[in-house]
Amino acid sequence: MLRARWALPFAVGAGLGAALAPRHRRDSPDPRGEAAEGLLARLPVLPVLPAVSAADLPAPPGSGRTELSKYGLPGLAQLRSRESYVLCYDPRSRSALWVIEQLNRDTLSGASDRAACDFQEDDSVHEYHRATNADYRGSGFDRGHLAAAANHKWSQKAMRDTFYLSNIAPQNPHLNQNAWNNLEKYCRSLAKHNRNVYVCTGPLFLPRTEADGKMYVKYQVIGKNNVAVPTHFFKVLILEKESGEIELRSYVMPNSPVDEKIPLERFLVPIESIERASGLLFVPNILRRTSNLKAITAGSRS
Amino acid sequence: MLRARWALPFAVGAGLGAALAPRHRRDSPDPRGEAAEGLLARLPVLPVLPAVSAADLPAPPGSGRTELSKYGLPGLAQLRSRESYVLCYDPRSRSALWVIEQLNRDTLSGASDRAACDFQEDDSVHEYHRATNADYRGSGFDRGHLAAAANHKWSQKAMRDTFYLSNIAPQNPHLNQNAWNNLEKYCRSLAKHNRNVYVCTGPLFLPRTEADGKMYVKYQVIGKNNVAVPTHFFKVLILEKESGEIELRSYVMPNSPVDEKIPLERFLVPIESIERASGLLFVPNILRRTSNLKAITAGSRS
Repeated sequence: MLRARWALPFAVGAGLGAALAPRHRRDSPDPRGEAAEGLLARLPVLPVLPAVSAADLPAPPGSGRTELSKYGLPGLAQLRSRESYVLCYDPRSRSALWVIEQLNRDTLSGASDRAACDFQEDDSVHEYHRATNADYRGSGFDRGHLAAAANHKWSQKAMRDTFYLSNIAPQNPHLNQNAWNNLEKYCRSLAKHNRNVYVCTGPLFLPRTEADGKMYVKYQVIGKNNVAVPTHFFKVLILEKESGEIELRSYVMPNSPVDEKIPLERFLVPIESIERASGLLFVPNILRRTSNLKAITAGSRS
Repeated sequence: MLRARWALPFAVGAGLGAALAPRHRRDSPDPRGEAAEGLLARLPVLPVLPAVSAADLPAPPGSGRTELSKYGLPGLAQLRSRESYVLCYDPRSRSALWVIEQLNRDTLSGASDRAACDFQEDDSVHEYHRATNADYRGSGFDRGHLAAAANHKWSQKAMRDTFYLSNIAPQNPHLNQNAWNNLEKYCRSLAKHNRNVYVCTGPLFLPRTEADGKMYVKYQVIGKNNVAVPTHFFKVLILEKESGEIELRSYVMPNSPVDEKIPLERFLVPIESIERASGLLFVPNILRRTSNLKAITAGSRS
């Protein structure tokens, strides 16, 4: 029954309880219920969102069929709003589904010091679903920023917030320190020549065909908490030009060494391919807000 | 660069656009913005939830740092409330994260006819993220119900709603027709002897150790839409007894043939193991609503 191979034992009587002995406190507060903090909380239309969680839903009155959610809904979107980004957490992968930042000339300048920042557990995430620094230790992967630290020199707190492990994913060191770093630098250079650049970054877990002709998604998990190692990363850039025109550029890089001599344009992909693979949508949201979407840049010759 | 093997091409100029030519209409309405329907909409405290989506968030007023979500948030929880269940959709896997039903004597009786039900696409899900019947055809997998059809004889519409492909996951035919079917029958027998049985069902994607000593999650995806094949399924049963006491029983079965001679109790697992692996939480929600949780049944000898 594969009992010894799967990480969650099943079909066992004795021994299962011991193997999965609780390491938690049942009386710890549900971190998803915390009050919204940071940027979102300052937006008049948004603050309800981060506070919405299964645990926060009052039990519906009445009885019978309307009692379906009487004992709560086991999981909803876990938004985190911080000084430098809004993030949607994926408790299953122990990292983010997506992170959005806003870059412009103001956010790029400042005296914030990266040396004063340490990677830290996000204790707003339940301990069952939280990555720790120990998970990364000896794994061979860097703690790769989704929202980049150097994008937020404007505020020491904003920079520090990028070091929460919820904004981090296991990343190939060569990629992190070379091609991906170049893409981050490129985002900052665009921010100098546009009114705003909105950057959305996230992991991808892409399938591929194996020898049996079937398609499989396969990815490593690291550490005691099984932090998922993405197969790829995406960045979607929404450029707001001085003219008010909007341009969209979307990039995908594999989570493996990438020769930094390859021009960044080679990593442009159609936004649709990211939307399909990630389960996210960008274009419909943008079109609801502006009719000024002038370009979807999707590779030099496509 | 693995270009030919990964399902999302990258680092290519020519050809990429053609390979991923849009098959959609950009002007189709965002299905996540649809008005809440069904059960949730009838609950006075809940209807805001299904309506909350990135596309529905009005652009925040003001400018500068508060504009972070100006062009929307790319993905939030996708709740669906229907006659027979509440479901949280996972657009990346093209199936549900979890589905909750409420079973009792009233829901088990009725004249609803399964023969009058057909599996149907859930067109409330964006077409990029939606499973189709064609995805299952020839895959070797059954269209396995998460909320079971036979649980909802009380209403033809409730039964028909269980046939939306958002409530379906690719399931090994032997499992679906034997051991899993027995577990579903067992849930119904419990509903006859308790005030209510709340059943939460969902997929698991469990890691296992491979020959290199590292842990990997690996699962097949089927069809043009890459519908994810779970490695396992869970069912969490919240039994509300006539006395008002609450008992919790949680089961995991592998998505492979299971000998139906093995007693169902052998598939009991500690709730914590499901909470950790699924990214969901059950116990904190229950404890917020009752102090009457008398038993967490987790295997006969653990």
